[in-house]
Amino acid sequence: MRARGTGSEEDVLERIRRAFGGLRLRTGRDGLRSKASSRFLSLGMGDDAALVSTAPGYEIVLTCDWFLAGTHFLQDNHPADAVGWKCLARAVSDIAAMGALPRCFLLSVALPRELAGAWLDDFLTGLRRAARKFGCSLAGGDTTERREVLINVTVAGEVRRGREVRRSGARPGDLIYVSGCLGEAELGLRLLRERKRGFSRRDVRLRKHLYPGPRLGLGRWLSEKGVVSAMMDLSDGLSSDLRRLCDASRVGAVIQSELLPTVSVTKLESNRGVDPLQLALHGGDDYELLFTVRKNKAKRLPRLVDGVAITAVGEVTRTREVMIADGNGRSGVLESRGWDPFRKSK
Amino acid sequence: MRARGTGSEEDVLERIRRAFGGLRLRTGRDGLRSKASSRFLSLGMGDDAALVSTAPGYEIVLTCDWFLAGTHFLQDNHPADAVGWKCLARAVSDIAAMGALPRCFLLSVALPRELAGAWLDDFLTGLRRAARKFGCSLAGGDTTERREVLINVTVAGEVRRGREVRRSGARPGDLIYVSGCLGEAELGLRLLRERKRGFSRRDVRLRKHLYPGPRLGLGRWLSEKGVVSAMMDLSDGLSSDLRRLCDASRVGAVIQSELLPTVSVTKLESNRGVDPLQLALHGGDDYELLFTVRKNKAKRLPRLVDGVAITAVGEVTRTREVMIADGNGRSGVLESRGWDPFRKSK
Repeated sequence: MRARGTGSEEDVLERIRRAFGGLRLRTGRDGLRSKASSRFLSLGMGDDAALVSTAPGYEIVLTCDWFLAGTHFLQDNHPADAVGWKCLARAVSDIAAMGALPRCFLLSVALPRELAGAWLDDFLTGLRRAARKFGCSLAGGDTTERREVLINVTVAGEVRRGREVRRSGARPGDLIYVSGCLGEAELGLRLLRERKRGFSRRDVRLRKHLYPGPRLGLGRWLSEKGVVSAMMDLSDGLSSDLRRLCDASRVGAVIQSELLPTVSVTKLESNRGVDPLQLALHGGDDYELLFTVRKNKAKRLPRLVDGVAITAVGEVTRTREVMIADGNGRSGVLESRGWDPFRKSK
Repeated sequence: MRARGTGSEEDVLERIRRAFGGLRLRTGRDGLRSKASSRFLSLGMGDDAALVSTAPGYEIVLTCDWFLAGTHFLQDNHPADAVGWKCLARAVSDIAAMGALPRCFLLSVALPRELAGAWLDDFLTGLRRAARKFGCSLAGGDTTERREVLINVTVAGEVRRGREVRRSGARPGDLIYVSGCLGEAELGLRLLRERKRGFSRRDVRLRKHLYPGPRLGLGRWLSEKGVVSAMMDLSDGLSSDLRRLCDASRVGAVIQSELLPTVSVTKLESNRGVDPLQLALHGGDDYELLFTVRKNKAKRLPRLVDGVAITAVGEVTRTREVMIADGNGRSGVLESRGWDPFRKSK
């Protein structure tokens, strides 16, 4: 993949405008996304700032996320279009975790001159695909030149007033749920590191790592039905994120290890020490939802929402510790061993 | 300035919470900022995303800006508190340029472990001072570990619907104005580079470079009075930014060089080749406002607004070129020679 260099910031902006100029947002299942998104964004790229407005009775949800070469992705291993997809997907996941829908985003990108050609175009292809999928328009941003690729994405979403789901509402006795399967993205990352360039980006075992799908449908369903007491997304790993949810709610938790929806690994992987339970507890980047439900509302939950499995994996406790128990009555403290950039650096 | 290292991301977040936890926003001249800001931000730091809502009849203005060590500031020359102040001030300047007021911001910061102690605290002191001054609450963000300091700031502001001032409204015959004095920040940067550590951060000639003050009062006055046809802030330098305003409005411009409000330089500086006109035309980082006014409305403009001088410096033309003329009838094309990260790198 050879990149042509570019002459100025205007060239970079022109590529971005070209990629997003003709973007027509997908009409989502609710038939409203495209209209909602253009109603929401009344002034997009090209001015000092973007202008957004909500429908009456709605609030705006704002979040931002780093996506840095060498910290959050590997410049040599990750395809440019996956970088584009994922930088938006992970910020959108925070919007899903509030029970909201994304509407528009700001893209800050810094990159070397030699990547401002073909690499940038591939990056924008992935980003545009994600933007269509999530119903989220490009509203503006900032570009600059830099030795390494640095990305920061801000997403603005919308939620009906009072329907947002916070981290702080869990109460002792609530059941703890997770969506999907945990540890898949971490396993994907390991495979990617091993295979280096010898992988297909369509490989199903890499898909969740390369092209994660934030749980927008599930998040919104939970918020609209009003069955959920607290929610967040799983970005750093269950052991770290559950601790945060418990801290925000001033509660503790006990997780039943045998209930966790884990990945299946091959015999070879197992022999090499790949442990599905450890992946599920500490693996990052899954972008599944972690949420709590009052016990008396739990029976109103189906097993699948928007095509995604949801699984009860434990219970909220009064004692402010996060514990893990196995099927044999043994239990211990679950240490936060998920992703922490200040603890492990690459 | 020795920094203590920190153990985890939670430590960094704790320092940020401590710095902003007790922040009570200054009640501005209009007596409304503090109330407006807390009404605007209904959920701040500590959840997956922040929640903001506007008063009826208002829209939300969104912008983001990079502030990267080595590109936008010099790690060894710039005091940490100036880095904190300026990263917010420059993003707020985009809000001023829309005629809006800032309400809250998201802070993304990546830094080395050894700067996550005293340096971070000084940075937060400057940031907090700016946040108070601009009436802008910290609403959330993202932190990570990195070899160099990387900052991205997103600001959300508010403007009455239909009162926003865009870049695209200039028409042939409009007068072109700038606020304040141009080239001061560039001169400050040169002094800072020369003096290295031997400078006082209170030096008045460095102040605009270290602690720029976005023109919020002027921007809002212009928007409320409805006298302005197009506006943007001067971040990269007049020659580059005026070109952008003209492109957005599909017009040209002619600047009268003798009308430009330039800095005064010492004899020594002049001998060294420091040229006030070149500083005013191409110097970046001033964060003054550039705006256009219909000729028949120009007489409604005072010479000072909110304590800031405004100066007519030229006229919008039909021919889509940006020209510069001197008092002797000579004129030529004004080349865009302001800051462009993809053209000159440090």
